[in-house]
Amino acid sequence: MILITGLNAFEHGGNLYEAVRKKGGLLTNVLDFSANINPLGLPESIKQAILESLENIIHYPDPQAYALKQAISCHFNVDANLITAGNGAVELLYILCNIRKPRRVLIPVPAFSEYERAARSSGAKIEYFYLKAENDFRLNPSLLIPHLKNDIDIIFLGNPNNPTGTLILKDELEPLLKTARANNVIVVVDESFIDFVADSNDYTCRNLLARFDNLVILHSLTKFYAIPGLRLGFVLASREITTCLHEAKDPWNVNTLAQCAGVSALNDRAFYISTKEFISCVKDDFYSQLCLIEGCKPYKPSVNFILIDITGTELSSAQIRTILAGMNILVRDCSNYPGLNDKYIRVAVKQPGQNSRLINALQQICR
Amino acid sequence: MILITGLNAFEHGGNLYEAVRKKGGLLTNVLDFSANINPLGLPESIKQAILESLENIIHYPDPQAYALKQAISCHFNVDANLITAGNGAVELLYILCNIRKPRRVLIPVPAFSEYERAARSSGAKIEYFYLKAENDFRLNPSLLIPHLKNDIDIIFLGNPNNPTGTLILKDELEPLLKTARANNVIVVVDESFIDFVADSNDYTCRNLLARFDNLVILHSLTKFYAIPGLRLGFVLASREITTCLHEAKDPWNVNTLAQCAGVSALNDRAFYISTKEFISCVKDDFYSQLCLIEGCKPYKPSVNFILIDITGTELSSAQIRTILAGMNILVRDCSNYPGLNDKYIRVAVKQPGQNSRLINALQQICR
Repeated sequence: MILITGLNAFEHGGNLYEAVRKKGGLLTNVLDFSANINPLGLPESIKQAILESLENIIHYPDPQAYALKQAISCHFNVDANLITAGNGAVELLYILCNIRKPRRVLIPVPAFSEYERAARSSGAKIEYFYLKAENDFRLNPSLLIPHLKNDIDIIFLGNPNNPTGTLILKDELEPLLKTARANNVIVVVDESFIDFVADSNDYTCRNLLARFDNLVILHSLTKFYAIPGLRLGFVLASREITTCLHEAKDPWNVNTLAQCAGVSALNDRAFYISTKEFISCVKDDFYSQLCLIEGCKPYKPSVNFILIDITGTELSSAQIRTILAGMNILVRDCSNYPGLNDKYIRVAVKQPGQNSRLINALQQICR
Repeated sequence: MILITGLNAFEHGGNLYEAVRKKGGLLTNVLDFSANINPLGLPESIKQAILESLENIIHYPDPQAYALKQAISCHFNVDANLITAGNGAVELLYILCNIRKPRRVLIPVPAFSEYERAARSSGAKIEYFYLKAENDFRLNPSLLIPHLKNDIDIIFLGNPNNPTGTLILKDELEPLLKTARANNVIVVVDESFIDFVADSNDYTCRNLLARFDNLVILHSLTKFYAIPGLRLGFVLASREITTCLHEAKDPWNVNTLAQCAGVSALNDRAFYISTKEFISCVKDDFYSQLCLIEGCKPYKPSVNFILIDITGTELSSAQIRTILAGMNILVRDCSNYPGLNDKYIRVAVKQPGQNSRLINALQQICR
């Protein structure tokens, strides 16, 4: 049996339930900046779709997720045969690692910790490529190329990367994809936050799928459509990898309500446009306000979350987290991210009034 | 990469969506005897719980499934630390196979096909133990003992078994569990339908958990509580296996609505009692009526489904399935079960009026 590192090393933001159990009180009283969910909240169209499908939960989900795949195919302009639907994008990370059984994976860090956890769960060794604070944690993909010879079977790249928000231009990825293909390395590009990016077409690798059978694009629908509790994500990959994913997953992995919510969400053009406009404007305001807080150095956001260097505050990330939790505000303590330390926190972009509450709280704490 | 047998070999009942796509029409017009779901339907208490939790889908699910595990612990009288909650019981089958990586598994057949599919997906070879029609497909567990030496790492047993409905007394399993433990073999007992059994305490292995660290009990909550579309199941196992399952699964595998539905379901004592009484009575009436159909030999049911030998009808299971589908009635063609052939179908026990519709249809077809 596999015995891997303790689970605490992989603790995430967004664990409201734990916070409420520890402190008492209600879920709704907590202001959660620790999970990066669309601040516009659940679209009315999804809520209606769920209510209309509620009676259908007495049937098994569609194992082919037919309507969902059609909706994804239309919305993202991809071949429906290259789609695998998941119980959240993270489920598919685990299944991919189970079928590929990587000996060694390469992860530029800091990065979303589930890449490492999924890889370890299938027995892989981890090689970190440390991104540098002095470069604002930006990745130059060509620097990864020399590492591909070290028995690497999978590379994981967040685009945009979580928790740093850094982006990689699609054109910059091509040389890496080519060398990776020649070395039989799968490149997993996690585009779970890309819908929040203003000019996402410059970054998404979707139209490279036809040319690179070693490219796997991971996409979550739970952040943009504010449905993390429902679980919904997908993978785009070659026909061969898509077949393997389908054969290794349980047939009913995507629940009925998530399937119908996904169809409804992807047809809600108004919500899509409102969100893009809202984030584009509010994230920059929030960033400007954070810049004014003594001792805090926020990194310029590309999407709906902001990494903050708190070195100047003389407080640790755990201290800030604890003080804010006492005020019913949750932020992500980034000290358990490899490549970061106890001088970083991450905050989601929320509604302007909510962002102001955090700004006020930080002003009290950091002065 | 693993390339396993085509997916058609593992086709299940309950694929209403496929049926409706092929034929047109509405989901609600189809009378589905191919999925074994509680005929009382979705309890009102679950529906209310889902409606009350709907707004919570904007948060991640509780990764510890704390309230759900407490409810399971109370209802089934088991230690909460031995519970792993799943996105349906089937998800946990795949995760168990991924962590144990069995070289070879033993399956008395006919059996639920996901045991084989999950085992194959982690690279195992399959050894069938053929149950005999002349013994009404009953298993004598002691006959499995000699097979344990053939490099077997996991045995899968349905109790009650699907599609045969046969039961194994808890006391009969003990010698097998002992020898299996001595040979380092995990015994997976699938109790997904056991709540429908009238005297289930004589059969459940739950109180053997403390003595056998090689016992894994699989349990679905979707059949009894009529929520297959929501996905909800759990595993009971030793602390060591429970730890491994938690480390190999994605943290948010059980969606928020399934967690709250589970809590509500397990507290609904009235629904539990009504279902037991209803099934106990209706299944025997349905069986008696099926006995009167020319050429059909139903097997006496223990739970909410009935296997029928149609040898006497001169029709194949595929023919009967197709004719009934033309009448908007779905039954399970059992020809793809190893250990059965094209002379078996399986039908769920539904409401008396619905059962009569099937009886009438079969009378027309089989005369």
